[in-house]
Amino acid sequence: MPKISQKGYDMPASPIRKLTPYAESAKQKGKKVYHLNIGQPDIETPKGMIDAIKSINFKVWAYTPSEGILSYRNKLAQHYNRINYNITPNDILVTNGASEAITIAMQTCLNSGDEIIIPEPFYANYSGFACMANIVVKPLLSVMNDNFALPSIAEFEKVITDKTKAIFICNPNNPTGYLYSKEELESLRDLCLKYDLFLFSDEAYREFCYDDREFISPLNLSGFDDNVVIIDSVSKRYSACGARLGCLITKNKAIYKAALKFAQARLSAPLVAQIAGEAALDTPDSYFIEVKKEYTQRRDLLANGLNKIPGVRCSVPGGAFYILAELPVNDTEKFCQWMLEEFDYNNETVMMAPASGFYSTPGMGKNEVRLAYVINQDDLKKALICLENGLIAYNSSARD
Amino acid sequence: MPKISQKGYDMPASPIRKLTPYAESAKQKGKKVYHLNIGQPDIETPKGMIDAIKSINFKVWAYTPSEGILSYRNKLAQHYNRINYNITPNDILVTNGASEAITIAMQTCLNSGDEIIIPEPFYANYSGFACMANIVVKPLLSVMNDNFALPSIAEFEKVITDKTKAIFICNPNNPTGYLYSKEELESLRDLCLKYDLFLFSDEAYREFCYDDREFISPLNLSGFDDNVVIIDSVSKRYSACGARLGCLITKNKAIYKAALKFAQARLSAPLVAQIAGEAALDTPDSYFIEVKKEYTQRRDLLANGLNKIPGVRCSVPGGAFYILAELPVNDTEKFCQWMLEEFDYNNETVMMAPASGFYSTPGMGKNEVRLAYVINQDDLKKALICLENGLIAYNSSARD
Ligand SMILES: Cc1ncc(COP(=O)(O)O)c(C=O)c1O
Ligand SMILES: Cc1ncc(COP(=O)(O)O)c(C=O)c1O
Repeated sequence: MPKISQKGYDMPASPIRKLTPYAESAKQKGKKVYHLNIGQPDIETPKGMIDAIKSINFKVWAYTPSEGILSYRNKLAQHYNRINYNITPNDILVTNGASEAITIAMQTCLNSGDEIIIPEPFYANYSGFACMANIVVKPLLSVMNDNFALPSIAEFEKVITDKTKAIFICNPNNPTGYLYSKEELESLRDLCLKYDLFLFSDEAYREFCYDDREFISPLNLSGFDDNVVIIDSVSKRYSACGARLGCLITKNKAIYKAALKFAQARLSAPLVAQIAGEAALDTPDSYFIEVKKEYTQRRDLLANGLNKIPGVRCSVPGGAFYILAELPVNDTEKFCQWMLEEFDYNNETVMMAPASGFYSTPGMGKNEVRLAYVINQDDLKKALICLENGLIAYNSSARD
Repeated sequence: MPKISQKGYDMPASPIRKLTPYAESAKQKGKKVYHLNIGQPDIETPKGMIDAIKSINFKVWAYTPSEGILSYRNKLAQHYNRINYNITPNDILVTNGASEAITIAMQTCLNSGDEIIIPEPFYANYSGFACMANIVVKPLLSVMNDNFALPSIAEFEKVITDKTKAIFICNPNNPTGYLYSKEELESLRDLCLKYDLFLFSDEAYREFCYDDREFISPLNLSGFDDNVVIIDSVSKRYSACGARLGCLITKNKAIYKAALKFAQARLSAPLVAQIAGEAALDTPDSYFIEVKKEYTQRRDLLANGLNKIPGVRCSVPGGAFYILAELPVNDTEKFCQWMLEEFDYNNETVMMAPASGFYSTPGMGKNEVRLAYVINQDDLKKALICLENGLIAYNSSARD
């Protein structure tokens, strides 16, 4: 029997799904599980998108152009230009989710063996996409004491080698919720110009910035357009994760031309998603105001609730819908599994994502979890009570 | 400005889309262009699929499990077991089209630098997917005189090295239309067992076998389940190319486990497509009988028509919906461009795909084109007349 590839072994398993079997068996035993482990919002998809699906009127479900339907790209460009990206439809490549945009960006910009610097903790699947492209991830630690702000430029300069080709940020950040400031982005710009690096900016959570703080994109800064690749997604903005629709934006013509060849090889992004994505661009502001209000309340509820639990600590995120929290246990992987397997409070428990999967430095994040506030506030309250009681029970029996 | 990756330059451009700008400008000049260049069928998508889209009733357009929705995989397994694949739902990984299934199969089974043997001419994007995974394609010539049958096992053995990890067939074949026999598949099985190789079988055109000839899959043979990876797609079967839905099937548990990690990294295949794909499995037999009848008539019309044009030669395909034809010109790339740019017959012309893009050996296929019979019979007749007159005009002016 032939052996699979080394990559097949090396490819990291999804840290978010690792504990799923334990959650399944908890549910089979009749336990209610609050899912704070995964970024699947409970928010309703805008009606305009759903209506667009229901009113499709094609007879042949055909491929679209590989770069995306022109009318969709036109409208997307207008949308981005309202937030001053200053782009044309030909700077946009429509993709199968942000996931594919990341793969294409990596393949287009980095050679096998090249290095990409990513502040950690970071979205775990970046490691998988890097593995697929034989790219080396150089993590740079961001810390809770500092709200997970951008590591200092001096820290970046320490890890830059002649193999370094790109820096990858996620803004607002998954899993930390940190929202980068204009100053931080400007310092990244200067760094990219100094060392001739690409800057990948994953803006899947752009819509979710709280406390009236402003979102700044590298495309809002001047002077380094050729270095910038934006990754975007409709998944979170419109709570339309199952559409599998995103895009890559770049004003660098060489990148675009090469990226298009990767897109042509896989032929097309999904047609129905693009039709709905076009309709989504007409979603009224009231939708986002409502959703943002809801997420802000949940964030406050969860952050306050966590900080009140003895031994638990977290920072208050400026964006996205995740909180990274430190728990008074040595190994959150064991604790999270125990919460599913052995614990219940009134027959309920909580599922969280152990944070070690979001670090690429071995051993980091072992006492941290990521919590996604994607369930309603009543359930969030109950989940907090479960967590508090779970920690007491776990620590009183000295299991860790 | 940072340089893009070498892969970004090396990635082959799609040979099918190369001439698109010439087609566009021909149309702008008011010329009618018959598109025989691309495998986008004009056949209507089954009503059951369209109805399934229109009657979606979710409120949150959510991710699906990375391996695909269970009810869809259950029904797919039943479908495949009716043609004796003898598989379970857990042998099926639902993908973003066959395209993604091919990428995942390559990444899972082959290391960087490993070799894959593919009979040429072959579906051009295999080269792109191999480029993405740093895999070396070893083409093995199949020839028109032999109907593009499988090259002899002796030929295979000549190119096998210790880097060879897999053989890749497409059955029925795009671009040749060749349908592999049971004997050919058995000889491939013995070869794979002898040299410990994987066999990838792309069966996107399985439904389209003509003249009552039987389709045989490697999964219909016994004794090498662990070597086999099947690639499938709903694109052509249901004329649903824009759904972006396919799957990878393997009974090899190590492959499946690794492939699932690649699938988890990109989270999910599209939800609406899977709902429609499940409905598609109830498409009545009458649909396929009709479609097959139509394709058979088109094939006969096109093959007979081509063989009647002086200097043109083609074999009669046993399956799929493509014909590879030899034309009396030296360079079909120039000729196809000329047909779009300079020629018209009653203000009409034909777009074809120059076949050199389907060969990976440089210089091969220069006097061949691929024609897809994806337009109605009246239009096919007119396209044939255009081609015949185009060849006369081109050769009488000795442009080549
Ligand atoms: C930071 C980040 N980037 C990308 C993705 C993938 O998004 P998509 O669903 O568009 O592939 C996610 C999904 O959770 C994410 O959190
Ligand atoms: C042989 C072959 N394999 C795979 C594909 C890609 O199919 P999908 O649309 O499912 O990605 C095609 C599309 O033309 C094809 O001809």
